[in-house]
Amino acid sequence: MKLWSQFFIPTLKESPADAEIASHKLLVRAGLVRKLGGGLYTYMPLGLRALQKITQICREEIDGAGGIELWMPHVHPAELWEQGPRWAAAREIMFRADSAGDGKRAGRDPEFVLGPTHEEIITPLVKAEITSYRDLPKNFYQIATKFRNEIRPRFGLMRAREFIMMDSYSFDANDEGAIKSYHAIKAAYEKFFKRVGATAIAVEADTGVMGGSFSHEFMIPAEIGDDDVIYNEESGYAANREKATSGIVPKDLADAAPAGALEEFATPGVLTIAALEAAPYSVPGDKQFKTLVFIGDGKPFIVIIRGNDELEEAKLGSLGFTVTRAATAEEIEPVLGAKPGSLGAVKGTIKNAGALAGVFADHAIRLIGNGTTGANKDGFHVRNVNVARDLAITSFGDFRRVRPGEPDPKSGQPLKVRRGIEVGHIFKLGTKYSEKFGAVYTDDQKQSHLMVMGCYGIGISRTMQALIEQSHDADGIVWPWSVAPFQVLICLLDPKVEEAAGVAKKIATAAEAAGADVLIDDRDERPGVKFKDADLIGIPLRIVIGSKGLKDGVVELKWRTSKEVTKLPLAEAEAKIAEAVRTAAAKS
Amino acid sequence: MKLWSQFFIPTLKESPADAEIASHKLLVRAGLVRKLGGGLYTYMPLGLRALQKITQICREEIDGAGGIELWMPHVHPAELWEQGPRWAAAREIMFRADSAGDGKRAGRDPEFVLGPTHEEIITPLVKAEITSYRDLPKNFYQIATKFRNEIRPRFGLMRAREFIMMDSYSFDANDEGAIKSYHAIKAAYEKFFKRVGATAIAVEADTGVMGGSFSHEFMIPAEIGDDDVIYNEESGYAANREKATSGIVPKDLADAAPAGALEEFATPGVLTIAALEAAPYSVPGDKQFKTLVFIGDGKPFIVIIRGNDELEEAKLGSLGFTVTRAATAEEIEPVLGAKPGSLGAVKGTIKNAGALAGVFADHAIRLIGNGTTGANKDGFHVRNVNVARDLAITSFGDFRRVRPGEPDPKSGQPLKVRRGIEVGHIFKLGTKYSEKFGAVYTDDQKQSHLMVMGCYGIGISRTMQALIEQSHDADGIVWPWSVAPFQVLICLLDPKVEEAAGVAKKIATAAEAAGADVLIDDRDERPGVKFKDADLIGIPLRIVIGSKGLKDGVVELKWRTSKEVTKLPLAEAEAKIAEAVRTAAAKS
Repeated sequence: MKLWSQFFIPTLKESPADAEIASHKLLVRAGLVRKLGGGLYTYMPLGLRALQKITQICREEIDGAGGIELWMPHVHPAELWEQGPRWAAAREIMFRADSAGDGKRAGRDPEFVLGPTHEEIITPLVKAEITSYRDLPKNFYQIATKFRNEIRPRFGLMRAREFIMMDSYSFDANDEGAIKSYHAIKAAYEKFFKRVGATAIAVEADTGVMGGSFSHEFMIPAEIGDDDVIYNEESGYAANREKATSGIVPKDLADAAPAGALEEFATPGVLTIAALEAAPYSVPGDKQFKTLVFIGDGKPFIVIIRGNDELEEAKLGSLGFTVTRAATAEEIEPVLGAKPGSLGAVKGTIKNAGALAGVFADHAIRLIGNGTTGANKDGFHVRNVNVARDLAITSFGDFRRVRPGEPDPKSGQPLKVRRGIEVGHIFKLGTKYSEKFGAVYTDDQKQSHLMVMGCYGIGISRTMQALIEQSHDADGIVWPWSVAPFQVLICLLDPKVEEAAGVAKKIATAAEAAGADVLIDDRDERPGVKFKDADLIGIPLRIVIGSKGLKDGVVELKWRTSKEVTKLPLAEAEAKIAEAVRTAAAKS
Repeated sequence: MKLWSQFFIPTLKESPADAEIASHKLLVRAGLVRKLGGGLYTYMPLGLRALQKITQICREEIDGAGGIELWMPHVHPAELWEQGPRWAAAREIMFRADSAGDGKRAGRDPEFVLGPTHEEIITPLVKAEITSYRDLPKNFYQIATKFRNEIRPRFGLMRAREFIMMDSYSFDANDEGAIKSYHAIKAAYEKFFKRVGATAIAVEADTGVMGGSFSHEFMIPAEIGDDDVIYNEESGYAANREKATSGIVPKDLADAAPAGALEEFATPGVLTIAALEAAPYSVPGDKQFKTLVFIGDGKPFIVIIRGNDELEEAKLGSLGFTVTRAATAEEIEPVLGAKPGSLGAVKGTIKNAGALAGVFADHAIRLIGNGTTGANKDGFHVRNVNVARDLAITSFGDFRRVRPGEPDPKSGQPLKVRRGIEVGHIFKLGTKYSEKFGAVYTDDQKQSHLMVMGCYGIGISRTMQALIEQSHDADGIVWPWSVAPFQVLICLLDPKVEEAAGVAKKIATAAEAAGADVLIDDRDERPGVKFKDADLIGIPLRIVIGSKGLKDGVVELKWRTSKEVTKLPLAEAEAKIAEAVRTAAAKS
């Protein structure tokens, strides 16, 4: 048991000025964290206790799924990252670590970097240590600090420069094994989130810069989440914004019959979809082709979507470029022959089609029959454009942003959208990293194969804050039992009265024996202050011991989740409280 | 319990080429660590288990001494270090953390640095959070990774770029309280080292760049240690090289009576103490003054020691300069009037005495009567020099290196010297940091005072390696019970024989119930391989279960510290092994 007076819980009445969301405010007000700098937080004693409990539950569940714990350095030789598949993109969010003294490497590539995740470290390690199929499968994990040089850290621990992650890496002999490892970890994640008291849902996700073949995000639903979840609870479909598709294009859609010949017409000053929707042109958005130009690894390429759709830029990741960005007007004109506003992809109108890396079309443009697009001539458009007849398309893909109400691709029911906080992410990586680092093993026929990898992460510090975001009220935090820094708070109203202190100690001992961590508020403060702080720091079970109650032979029991106060006869208090602890622990 | 086949212990027959010392070789050979880069190590699964046990024992002991655990960021805003008292010196060994992508800060001062220790972080935190005497004393600690940009990392975890430390910081209302806090931590350190099975001795130490008023190092004696301990076991005196003094100067020493007038004499070509000792001059080293010139914070100063003594450069730290370095010949000549070889400090011979920041003399020069020193005229010396009469000394101090056999300052008995590994260091800091950061509190009279600080560190990863250095034999590691990654290793010689595997599981269960962590070697390997690995990884208690033994109704028990093998009848095996576990645990 700990005494408040000998512990350190600096609660605050006011929220810090930079805290925009409830959980961030409560983290600071309840004395769980203090800000050192942008995105850099000290875990104060109470916060660290919650963090350690989350960590321990995570360790147990990953161990239970066969994970083997190790601990890799925070500082990485940059050359390993340079050898890996994502250095160009990753370095933008990484810290480099040079000598603070001499600045000798100023202007040069870094010698060391701080790890945001550890694929580039574990893969060469496994390559060096594992050579035989007999040592596979293996799943290594660590729970450690990660670093991202966030330009705009915000929301407390949600988007921080330093954060704590459980990251694990599976190595299998083949794809079948890798899928098995993936699902074992997915099941462990589900148990973990349940045990810490979080409602987390697994959603299909994009693999992004990490690469790989498939992926799920674990999201805790919350208004302030930084990610959209597109879902339908009946069908069970759930995907994040970058991955979500809808069933608006029927699978058996036939190409529209061309209605007439292509016809160029003047559209002076028309530079937007909206302008072409307006009179005198009156072309509906869903009858327009929107032609967008990007640069992928240095070469221009075209993406065509419907005029009334929005591009979901992350979906361009499926095209396989390492670095993608929007093209400038200066880059577009020499290739297409016109400025933005009059662009199109009708065969024969592209000035220098040979310069393009491709023309990629969203499936939904197949819904357009006899549409309109730019003529690649400033101030002109073309009508009666038909996909199959008129457009030179390299390949179709899913590039559009899904809207609520569109049909779920699984069941056709309307899709819904809600915000969520990403607290975990799992990837089936395939051989992307094992290829780069030569992580091969020999099978029982002495044949050599690439290992098939998966990688998996849980944001431990982020989960701590997400739990607060999910579980608080106007008075403060409402900790789930399993991760509460203390499970029982004894408010000792008259700490100097020996009898009261003695009762507190006895009850604390009984609660501890039943499995609770106990904090005794022995401060020389008014009851009102103690009760306010008790609500603020959110300990699940509160016991109040005061001289007045003791005269009546009672102590008071109150759950943080309820307003009800139960008076316990002193003679039964220890047993009743121990029983309450055991019941709560069994339920959690 | 863990199965070897599902765990990961990559043992090696050969030592890595860069391992110079036994513990470094064993760390790698036993599969406890793997090198990622110079001074950067991955803790492999077995190594991490030992590390976590040491960590937990440390946590319990520091908690027991009233320590309050928190966790501060690894990345620090550089401005806090700039505000602190030791930036100029510390930045030489620190990493800066900039963006890896743009290198915008190239050539400029860093925005962030990686913490080698956390005085500059905890002091402003406490200043912001504690304002009243009622919240004092407090001792905050963390167990976390620290960073030093070592130019020449070596000896494995001994001198690494990343290492794990327990660092704690005490804040008291006054000096008396600070001394009490210091001694509470010192006692906790002694318990910690005893519990992890280390023979560590507390030695008086220099406060160095950390500053402060007094200090102890905890040293584990070892040939390969990087530090000398000067000691006498009977008197109990123990100090490190930088701090050690000897009793060669009697306390009641009277100044020698001047024997004659100062006399300059020609010494062409004489540039060293040795040359003046030789004929025709024949001046013994202990009758010569050695005059050394340094630059302290930009100004030259003189240090005088006996000709036959060596300077202990770290002792110049007591002079209070922030940065000290040897002066060059070009810097010396304009001030003293001569080149090195003919330097001295006789009154009136220094060309520009006003430029000096001081003349500091080692106590032992007072043993010289009628000595010889340089004349500050190239090729000339002066004889009949007497300290009190002839030298303009700013102050006396202890600057010489102690030699074995010199009298212990406490008892006069001969001092001995041995090598040790520094595993802990505690400092009474005083108000050096609270002053810089304005960490004040208000007393019960509403008066404001500076908090009095102490800081304390234990090298957790270093202790792990030092334990191996202290406890190994030709076959491998001999882990102390308390920190062994597993306490019991069951060598299952015929893992495919169901009966044997069943017995192993039963015995493992009994040993675990008695409090041991159990590893079962279920690999498909020859007994010889298993026994060699068992000795190498050094698990304290080994149980051998084989089909042959089971036919005879026995299993074998062997301690790592003994060659003796005990045959246990199968019926008694569980009970006997559980008893052995309980006995070993009670002793550790």
